[in-house]
Amino acid sequence: MSERECESADESDAPDERAATAEKLVELAKRRGYFFQSSGAYGGVGGFYTFGPQGAALKGNVEDAWRDRFAVAEGNMEIDAPTIMPEPVFEASGHLEGFDDMLVECPDCGESHRADHVVEDETEYEDAESLPIPEVEEIIAEYELVCPNCGAGLAGQAVEDFNLMFETNIGPGDADPGYLRPETAQGIFVEFPRLKEYARNQLPFGVTQIGRAYRNEISPRRSIVRTREFTQAELEYFVDPEVDEPDLTAVADVEVRLYPASEQQAEDGAEIETTIGDAVAEGIIGDPWVAYFLGIARPWYESIGVDMDRFRYRQHLSGERAHYASDCWDAESEIDGNWIEIAGFAHRGDYDLSKHADHSGDRFTVFRQYDEPITVERAAVDPDMSYLGPEFGGDAQTVVQKLEDLAARDRSAFEGDAVEITLEGETHEIPVERTGFSVDEQTEAGEHVLPHVVEPSFGVDRTVYTVLHHAYREDEVDGEERTHLALEPEVAPTFVGVFPLQSDEELEERAREIVADLRAAGLSVTYDDSGNIGRRYRRQDEVGTPFCVTVDYESLDDDAATVRERDTTAQKRIPIADLAATLSALRAGDAAFDDLE
Amino acid sequence: MSERECESADESDAPDERAATAEKLVELAKRRGYFFQSSGAYGGVGGFYTFGPQGAALKGNVEDAWRDRFAVAEGNMEIDAPTIMPEPVFEASGHLEGFDDMLVECPDCGESHRADHVVEDETEYEDAESLPIPEVEEIIAEYELVCPNCGAGLAGQAVEDFNLMFETNIGPGDADPGYLRPETAQGIFVEFPRLKEYARNQLPFGVTQIGRAYRNEISPRRSIVRTREFTQAELEYFVDPEVDEPDLTAVADVEVRLYPASEQQAEDGAEIETTIGDAVAEGIIGDPWVAYFLGIARPWYESIGVDMDRFRYRQHLSGERAHYASDCWDAESEIDGNWIEIAGFAHRGDYDLSKHADHSGDRFTVFRQYDEPITVERAAVDPDMSYLGPEFGGDAQTVVQKLEDLAARDRSAFEGDAVEITLEGETHEIPVERTGFSVDEQTEAGEHVLPHVVEPSFGVDRTVYTVLHHAYREDEVDGEERTHLALEPEVAPTFVGVFPLQSDEELEERAREIVADLRAAGLSVTYDDSGNIGRRYRRQDEVGTPFCVTVDYESLDDDAATVRERDTTAQKRIPIADLAATLSALRAGDAAFDDLE
Repeated sequence: MSERECESADESDAPDERAATAEKLVELAKRRGYFFQSSGAYGGVGGFYTFGPQGAALKGNVEDAWRDRFAVAEGNMEIDAPTIMPEPVFEASGHLEGFDDMLVECPDCGESHRADHVVEDETEYEDAESLPIPEVEEIIAEYELVCPNCGAGLAGQAVEDFNLMFETNIGPGDADPGYLRPETAQGIFVEFPRLKEYARNQLPFGVTQIGRAYRNEISPRRSIVRTREFTQAELEYFVDPEVDEPDLTAVADVEVRLYPASEQQAEDGAEIETTIGDAVAEGIIGDPWVAYFLGIARPWYESIGVDMDRFRYRQHLSGERAHYASDCWDAESEIDGNWIEIAGFAHRGDYDLSKHADHSGDRFTVFRQYDEPITVERAAVDPDMSYLGPEFGGDAQTVVQKLEDLAARDRSAFEGDAVEITLEGETHEIPVERTGFSVDEQTEAGEHVLPHVVEPSFGVDRTVYTVLHHAYREDEVDGEERTHLALEPEVAPTFVGVFPLQSDEELEERAREIVADLRAAGLSVTYDDSGNIGRRYRRQDEVGTPFCVTVDYESLDDDAATVRERDTTAQKRIPIADLAATLSALRAGDAAFDDLE
Repeated sequence: MSERECESADESDAPDERAATAEKLVELAKRRGYFFQSSGAYGGVGGFYTFGPQGAALKGNVEDAWRDRFAVAEGNMEIDAPTIMPEPVFEASGHLEGFDDMLVECPDCGESHRADHVVEDETEYEDAESLPIPEVEEIIAEYELVCPNCGAGLAGQAVEDFNLMFETNIGPGDADPGYLRPETAQGIFVEFPRLKEYARNQLPFGVTQIGRAYRNEISPRRSIVRTREFTQAELEYFVDPEVDEPDLTAVADVEVRLYPASEQQAEDGAEIETTIGDAVAEGIIGDPWVAYFLGIARPWYESIGVDMDRFRYRQHLSGERAHYASDCWDAESEIDGNWIEIAGFAHRGDYDLSKHADHSGDRFTVFRQYDEPITVERAAVDPDMSYLGPEFGGDAQTVVQKLEDLAARDRSAFEGDAVEITLEGETHEIPVERTGFSVDEQTEAGEHVLPHVVEPSFGVDRTVYTVLHHAYREDEVDGEERTHLALEPEVAPTFVGVFPLQSDEELEERAREIVADLRAAGLSVTYDDSGNIGRRYRRQDEVGTPFCVTVDYESLDDDAATVRERDTTAQKRIPIADLAATLSALRAGDAAFDDLE
């Protein structure tokens, strides 16, 4: 994921009626077991959430769907690396030095705030994060900004860089600091020398990981949108920059809504409805690999229930992008009129692997074999030190280096009797015969290539949040208000609820037989015999169960049961013997409820 | 899991020929992508391992199998809580105070060691962990024990308690310490007040969690057996101690090998082969809930490929058991002649919930409704303060308290004209009419019950390690040595490998069609066309793929392919059209390879 998860505050197309949905959703999530703030018995801790029974199931289903699409179907490898990593990893990755937020502490109440947020909330500055610290301090003083918590003035308070990694110590003492990874990606990059062996040294190949990542946010907020501990699903796709190309024909016709940087900066800029193929042809998406992954991600999001009318790809502005990234797009979903980032798609060049290669000294390249071995001429020197030593003394080694560089750069310089080199501004002539200059033919079978990385990086919690938010519905059933979650069958925690109509041993037994049947068919089933039937329907509606099956007294005679569809509340009578097959077909999308007899 | 994961060093029944299997397995695991030490490019860090593509798949399959058995099939709820938890949680749980190992540092090389291990390795003391620190220091001095790393004497070095939790800070500054959970269980206990709502306040109910746990081991060792970051699968089963009983008939006939505490302590003690039913009847397993979970776990272990000849349940010795646990058994697997703990089954009483109730003040009880409301008499006082005030001054409130206590304890004391109370050694008489004493009848619908907890706690990494170790085979095929993993189809990373016999476009196309077919049937498939066919078989043998399908030139004529079984290397010719159905039947155990036509 891009190192900073920016929330886009574009509220221009916010439909008013949605304004309060997030609040209602958070209440439902807590009541029905989707998610809630952790350690509530101890007052809770900001930025930590627990997924309850429904939420853990939904999250697991979203992860499985991601795995099927981005690992299995693409033939990528999935790994599972530790969340604690040692300091040298983050020295190399740059996180130790640069993974900071601006912190300002209130002199009165002592509460910490993000200085750039304080500035953005109270002034016309829009991208305060990109300003140097002294300027932020000046703005705070100039605008007489105050503590959002207690109202005390913040002018004169120091603004400091605060590193967002959680730090700990590995083993006794503090000799070996460790950090909780701020992204799962580093667990892939750092193991590249081994992973390339598993890929049999053939580019391109992809490695995925689904797991926890941690950022010690100064001000966590908006329930599971900005937390301190979260789950990422990341794919690092390693390509040979000179050879590999994606199969764009597979995604050319995928329709996307794009919000390119140019449109964001234009006075009357707007989103563009186009296809991946056209966007690449017109240069709107610059990198074909990024285009490929945008292309396969869009139908995936649709399949898990993200509303495509509330989904877009937004290109990073040049100032927003990491310096090494050649192109970067975010997937964004609309939540109560705000756009939030739910995934990032970046072409990271060779930044990550080159950094780890430099810092570790290990081999992060892949050997690319030529179609046929080639013969190359290599110019080399083998200087006569018995001449250079007395002539140059302590500078002799420097002279050797200069001769080597010269031979590699310009072999014609050795065509005369002497070559010229410059040492501290002074020119020296060295007889060519003393340089040991020669040109040799070498046969090379291939070359070592430092792969480039394309990274689709998904925030699982935000995806879950979006899926829930976009599924939230309020309607009326029989004159009563109803809330339901119109979740896709693929991700719904439970696919079918089975009820006996009333508390009756015979009905209960029959219902339990059906539960066993449906479970044997691989469906996720819940049984409920408590409360009146209306209440049981509402309960399943609120957790988003697509279908309910009710066994009544008639069932004992006609061997059929009532199947009710969640969204329409329509009911059909289905033979009990057919239930497993019928519901399986509905689950797989091979049948529609409307068409059932 | 029990707070200390003890390795049982019983080597008595170690078959010699297995002695080196662990080493070979670790080499295979690294080469084939099962697991390897993390951050190798930076020299590695003790106690952190990465699961490669094969290992992540195997681990995921083991987790799914566990989920199916212990969450879904038992009707328990699964949750997903954060790994970082705030300090008050561990003040309550006791981990902050007591989750320590004994540390001794070498004065010369500075390396840290577990003092109890140094003592156990070099003296006849067997359970040094249970000794007080001064005694351990004395033993080190008396035996002149030395640093296992450099040989310097350790006598005179201080032995200290070292807390095994990884500590960090939540938010800026150090005002809010947080800890990486040492067991997933706390994430369940602390949320009990909410979880009981999801269970509709009905005991018994179970909550499961699969996730990371962390212990900052002083000396991590034995690859993934004792790591600093690992995965647990825990079930916390909450029961009403006076009402709930398990269905022991479901497990009565399960055969188990037990090693009770009494046998471990007896001179000629031995393991006992019995059934769960008999073990309960004879009092060998004291707690029926523990017996129930031992009963369902044993066939589960067998189903994922743990060798039942190298598996036993060992009861904790009384000194080994946490003081609050009324009974505790470990599942142990034999690895190269050593028994290692792979799960713990403990009856924890009300320890966890009562601690969190005390520390948080939140409600950790469940209301148990009586079959019928009952009427109880309650004695109460309502003292006349206009009398007590002048009479007792500043002590008046103390007197009220004493009167309340007395009324609850002994209502007969109020039968006379005056009651006696003692205040700082002096006896005072108070007229009963001034106490407002009364006995009222109250109707009570039920009572608040503090549930007891039964905890089956599984170490996922150790289970994976055991499954691999028990599946490791060396044999000869056609006069050549072969290594293969006889993994169960349910957990094998790949179920079937598909190969074209030779590099030929037509064969490759046909093979790829088969891959697509088998994947559509829900099977895990890998395609391989590199290297000669023998090498490809060996590769799949080594990662434990149960079946391989080879397409040859004959296939183009007869529309059949060769299916090869991993363990026997037997081959059969199967029509390509039948492959998906045949392999699915083999996967489900509905067909045996030997019986195929």
